Amino acid sequence: MLQDLNNSTICAQATALGQSAIAVIRVSGPSTFEIVSRVFRSRKGLQLDQMKGYSLCYGSLLKEDGTLLDDALLSVFRSPASYTGEDMVEISCHASPYIVSEALRALVAFGCRYAAPGEFTRRAFTNGKMDLTQAEAVADIIASETKEAHKIAINQLKGGFSNELAAMREQLLHIVSLMELELDFSEEDVEFADRSELRSLLDKATSHIGELISSFKLGNAIKNGVPVAIVGATNTGKSTLLNALLGEDRAIVSSIAGTTRDTIEDTMNVGGILFRFIDTAGIRRTMETIEMAGIERTYYKIKQASIVMLVLDYTRQDDFEESVRNLSINLGGGEQRIIILLNKIDEKPVIATNLFEGRAPESITPEENISKVCDVISDIAAGNNIAPLAILPISAKKKTGLDSIRTLLAHSQQEAGTGTESVLVANLRHYTALKEAYDSLLKATVALDEHRPADLIAQDIREALYSLGTIVGEISTDEVLENIFSRFCIGK
Amino acid sequence: MLQDLNNSTICAQATALGQSAIAVIRVSGPSTFEIVSRVFRSRKGLQLDQMKGYSLCYGSLLKEDGTLLDDALLSVFRSPASYTGEDMVEISCHASPYIVSEALRALVAFGCRYAAPGEFTRRAFTNGKMDLTQAEAVADIIASETKEAHKIAINQLKGGFSNELAAMREQLLHIVSLMELELDFSEEDVEFADRSELRSLLDKATSHIGELISSFKLGNAIKNGVPVAIVGATNTGKSTLLNALLGEDRAIVSSIAGTTRDTIEDTMNVGGILFRFIDTAGIRRTMETIEMAGIERTYYKIKQASIVMLVLDYTRQDDFEESVRNLSINLGGGEQRIIILLNKIDEKPVIATNLFEGRAPESITPEENISKVCDVISDIAAGNNIAPLAILPISAKKKTGLDSIRTLLAHSQQEAGTGTESVLVANLRHYTALKEAYDSLLKATVALDEHRPADLIAQDIREALYSLGTIVGEISTDEVLENIFSRFCIGK
Repeated sequence: MLQDLNNSTICAQATALGQSAIAVIRVSGPSTFEIVSRVFRSRKGLQLDQMKGYSLCYGSLLKEDGTLLDDALLSVFRSPASYTGEDMVEISCHASPYIVSEALRALVAFGCRYAAPGEFTRRAFTNGKMDLTQAEAVADIIASETKEAHKIAINQLKGGFSNELAAMREQLLHIVSLMELELDFSEEDVEFADRSELRSLLDKATSHIGELISSFKLGNAIKNGVPVAIVGATNTGKSTLLNALLGEDRAIVSSIAGTTRDTIEDTMNVGGILFRFIDTAGIRRTMETIEMAGIERTYYKIKQASIVMLVLDYTRQDDFEESVRNLSINLGGGEQRIIILLNKIDEKPVIATNLFEGRAPESITPEENISKVCDVISDIAAGNNIAPLAILPISAKKKTGLDSIRTLLAHSQQEAGTGTESVLVANLRHYTALKEAYDSLLKATVALDEHRPADLIAQDIREALYSLGTIVGEISTDEVLENIFSRFCIGK
Repeated sequence: MLQDLNNSTICAQATALGQSAIAVIRVSGPSTFEIVSRVFRSRKGLQLDQMKGYSLCYGSLLKEDGTLLDDALLSVFRSPASYTGEDMVEISCHASPYIVSEALRALVAFGCRYAAPGEFTRRAFTNGKMDLTQAEAVADIIASETKEAHKIAINQLKGGFSNELAAMREQLLHIVSLMELELDFSEEDVEFADRSELRSLLDKATSHIGELISSFKLGNAIKNGVPVAIVGATNTGKSTLLNALLGEDRAIVSSIAGTTRDTIEDTMNVGGILFRFIDTAGIRRTMETIEMAGIERTYYKIKQASIVMLVLDYTRQDDFEESVRNLSINLGGGEQRIIILLNKIDEKPVIATNLFEGRAPESITPEENISKVCDVISDIAAGNNIAPLAILPISAKKKTGLDSIRTLLAHSQQEAGTGTESVLVANLRHYTALKEAYDSLLKATVALDEHRPADLIAQDIREALYSLGTIVGEISTDEVLENIFSRFCIGK
């Protein structure tokens, strides 16, 4: 289907832009050797088209006009033993933007075309070097920032997910073949397939797909970051906390209430797990339209988050009750884990002398007071049906207590099941296709239970097989491929 | 001298940082194959230490704990046929920061050391793969942004400058050997060396070095950019002009007089030549200390510049005389080329009706008025002994007339002699050494003319030879090498 695109020879820089020691330019396609030999002279007088695959060649890289551009090293690959499956050359030259642009210009002058994003990998897929989940894993592996995200991607690249799907499709094909055998003999009213055995096979497949679907929440969190919403009343120091955690000034911090109007997202690697922090507009009564919109988004973010960090201000203890109640109302019955942070413990608090009966205020140590205040918060939380993972006294400004937050975050996710060895679905396209397959299998099960004709049931299962087939790319459209590969970087 | 450093095996990422298709990690040193075989498994079961040089090998890159990190391609080089002259491996993997850092971590765990900046090239120099000018050319070639800068660097990399120096040293050695032959027979008062022939040889060598020294101004300008100072009274739009030329908001532009306190430098490629623009503090009478310092720097910058662009404000024609006179005073008798820019021609000017005798103001077209004003400026310039290359009417704000500036700049440098095929000195270290050699030869010439003893003259020439020897690195100290290679990027 894509054979017409493959007649051209494509080129692109495959290494990151910028000055460095080495840049690599990739060339792939039927005219690779012919074109590259126009811009390269081997030191030893070797002819490119006579060189063996998997060999290197040192020589001069030339400009379009034949003058010397740079010394370069060529890696030669011969079809089909290459990344794309086509004849390929990788030109390794000095990473000067001038040299790379002149080299690409010369390659194009002699017949290359600039590669589209992901076009090398798309050719690898088209030429059967990898299936679609593996091609997608290439992009994921490059984007993976943490150990856990890398693990999912490398497992997928090595065909872990494909094998899982293949096993499942084999099961389903077995069921279908049993049913279709029955169809051939339908006149004779034979039931080759034992219905209860069929039912059990269907259940097994459905439940397996169900598990994969359930793994998406975790897989997606690992890939894109576990969403952590930072909420609290205005001026409790949410933005300062975010900056302190990220170690950079990502959010504008000011002491004017309502500074953070929009949600800001940023990610941080804690113990091999990516967390995606969501700084939110402070929740307070406001009539200002822009801010109202911000607060609505905050409620939405709380519902989406896996973890909610409620920030309370140590110096404004009267606000505790309202803040906790607000959060409780807005959790939306979700399964978010809650962490309560008592911020600004470096500042002078209002000492609640009534908590220290019979003691003179000056005899109460700051630590004692903080500890009492945490007890009060614990009671308020319980009264609002909130069971926080912990109540941590911190100072975002002085950066105290941040390590406790990091430890707690990492720990909370280990409990959630990262570190598992089983296949996790981390790709929305896969998730959607699995859901379709799941729905088709549920239809098949109902039909089986209702003793519908075998051909109807077989049709439902075939639909599930189709959905699963789109995942590995056995069934694919140009539009789907375009959508997948356009997200790749150029040169991949 | 550096042999001790060479006992270690070093590693570094050689490609630019950032996500992309491919990253290359370089490993060099005696334990290369041993260490790399701990983190790599060939797909075909090949043993690294048995692989031929200049061959490629596909397989799995492993983490320190032996688990799979990525698919990778190895380029294998065997001493002495490698960049450094040592055993080397280049590991080509997916350019994910996570993968690269894990791979480097594993290499270090198995005995590699992180390479210092330029350490691979320093080893190439130490192992006699290149001389010092060629090593320096490697850094220059990576940094070269324009065609002309690239030409100097590639010529130097290919040994063009080294050959030039070698020829000159041969000449000088010939003279010295003639003189020293004479010394051996000094008792007999023989003059083997014809003094006038010696004098002529010395003159030739001195003049050749003199030419190389003179080429430094051009060479340096090509490498670092031709310095262009933008000067003028406050609020004439100098920063706006710079931004318009650079196409970006590099300088803070405000309408408050005196915004630009510090000089801002930025470069632009015009027709293959790099120009370095120097935005300067507006020159006006001021009592403010910081601004006074800025204005002093402006005067200094004018003296350093090759080209000075004086910006005049079309709407403030009364300032013309003072601005031009200020510039004239501050040129410092230099050879700067002057371009006068009449800015803000889009704004409503004061029409000097006295220039249009007998005509009603409303009958005068803007074009006529601009033309007349340019004539007036021309007269003022002549009165102040300034002969500008051109007086160009522009509007920095509306970006009109900018192409005329660019054309004029490119043209001015073509006249100055870029595009020449001869060797240009572009490196300050080379320039300094050449100056030393030049001074030594002048001393030798004087000594010759004064009929001083041959051994004294020979000593002067030997000093010149020493200075020239430091350029190619035949004579070098750790300090000099440290200084040179520490400016390289890591991985080179």
